[in-house]
Amino acid sequence: MEGYGRFLALLASALLVGFVSVILSLVWVFHYREGLSWDGSSAEFNWHPVLIVTGFVFIQGIAIIVYRLPWTWKCSKLLMKFIHAGLNTIAMILAIVAMVAAFDYHNARNIPNMYSLHSWIGLTAVIFYALQLFCGFAVFLLPFAPAHLRAAVMPIHAYSGLTIFATVIATSLMGITEKLIFGLSSPSYSESPPEATLVNCLGLLLVIFGSLILWMASRPYWKRPPEENAKILSPIGANPEGTEVESTMTNSSNADKADLRSNTEEARKQNIKFDEAGQRSTM
Amino acid sequence: MEGYGRFLALLASALLVGFVSVILSLVWVFHYREGLSWDGSSAEFNWHPVLIVTGFVFIQGIAIIVYRLPWTWKCSKLLMKFIHAGLNTIAMILAIVAMVAAFDYHNARNIPNMYSLHSWIGLTAVIFYALQLFCGFAVFLLPFAPAHLRAAVMPIHAYSGLTIFATVIATSLMGITEKLIFGLSSPSYSESPPEATLVNCLGLLLVIFGSLILWMASRPYWKRPPEENAKILSPIGANPEGTEVESTMTNSSNADKADLRSNTEEARKQNIKFDEAGQRSTM
Repeated sequence: MEGYGRFLALLASALLVGFVSVILSLVWVFHYREGLSWDGSSAEFNWHPVLIVTGFVFIQGIAIIVYRLPWTWKCSKLLMKFIHAGLNTIAMILAIVAMVAAFDYHNARNIPNMYSLHSWIGLTAVIFYALQLFCGFAVFLLPFAPAHLRAAVMPIHAYSGLTIFATVIATSLMGITEKLIFGLSSPSYSESPPEATLVNCLGLLLVIFGSLILWMASRPYWKRPPEENAKILSPIGANPEGTEVESTMTNSSNADKADLRSNTEEARKQNIKFDEAGQRSTM
Repeated sequence: MEGYGRFLALLASALLVGFVSVILSLVWVFHYREGLSWDGSSAEFNWHPVLIVTGFVFIQGIAIIVYRLPWTWKCSKLLMKFIHAGLNTIAMILAIVAMVAAFDYHNARNIPNMYSLHSWIGLTAVIFYALQLFCGFAVFLLPFAPAHLRAAVMPIHAYSGLTIFATVIATSLMGITEKLIFGLSSPSYSESPPEATLVNCLGLLLVIFGSLILWMASRPYWKRPPEENAKILSPIGANPEGTEVESTMTNSSNADKADLRSNTEEARKQNIKFDEAGQRSTM
């Protein structure tokens, strides 16, 4: 793998930043707030930030880059698809529980639901995330979609995955802003009490985590190698969709061909150069 | 151009959404707030949302996709670089004036500065944007940087441009949230007065605008054709960095070669296929 050390350093940074974010959300609710419970009180609301940071940001981020971990390249593509879909499903469930906690708390306190921009964009993100999961499952995991459909849907799937992820982080920042304004009084948010500083730092870490994931997910030389190298080595003028189908969208019936692949170093280099030129000139 | 109709439809949508966003920010400050002035009052603060939406979101978004407008492909690359840098400079100036308006207003009212997550991330975005402008100017516009340096910096320049743009939109959403919570009382934000609905819609439009720009900026088949096609047609195993330098980073001394290019349809198609494979398998 080209730049293996750099990849490991970035992965370690992303894991550290994501892990510290989860810890900070727990410190926030246990040290500065009422802890966690499920009784309609503020402690029920507190599940909302904890589960969003843990599930909808951290686990979703890991799901995005899971194909790029070099030690998974010897696993079959189908297994990796299950892990990718599984992590996203866990993130989805945690996001829904987080949403229910917020609604429950609002209802118990007679606070209106769905009036804020945070709630509008947050609910939209959850709906799009569910659609993304459903379409991903139907097109890439089930064995029915033809290769040309997979090839057509793949760029949309990748684009919407990253866009939803960025939108989820933006929504978290709005949520943090709301909670600090409503939750802090004597001293208020504008007086910068330690809680405000801690949670602002949590917001900054979420942005850094998102930036690291987006960088790792968009580098061509850290992409999982294709299942078969033969097509990669075809001339530049040949239809690259075959390449694409093999490299990122191998369907389940092809997945068990994984052991057949001959991952020569030369083929990898060819593939990297091919991707690199396309990616550099596009991004 | 492949998918010319689709490109035009998306461009028209982005322009419409961006234009309506600017109008909504003006309706907000003139119809629901105190209008615009420069006297330390709330009307001075109102420059902040108007200039951020107009400059830091709308103009920056246009600057990102300006190379992709097909009717500019006959213009020299150097001219397009000046337009790209010029639009970004205008956006930068408007963002700084917007920031000064907010600080002035805070100081006149004895409201603390720099306590909120909005201000932390907003200031960070402005600093990174200034660095991005400076580095872009030094590396891509001035004729001193060698080709290999341009090739090395280009992916970072493109990545950080898009990441800063997304961060600016996220920061705007936090700013909208803050202003609606602090600015609305009897009826409050949670009672959903018309102003809250209007400004929530503005926030939604900013997310849609950002998503459209990111889609258009990351499609390989809408990329400006390279200045010289010879290098594109070199075999796949050849170093693609030359391709990249020609296709997106032609330096100023090369820019005047533009008239020499022979944009045959065949060469264009080769280039599109080349990019497409790299991009699809990466994004």
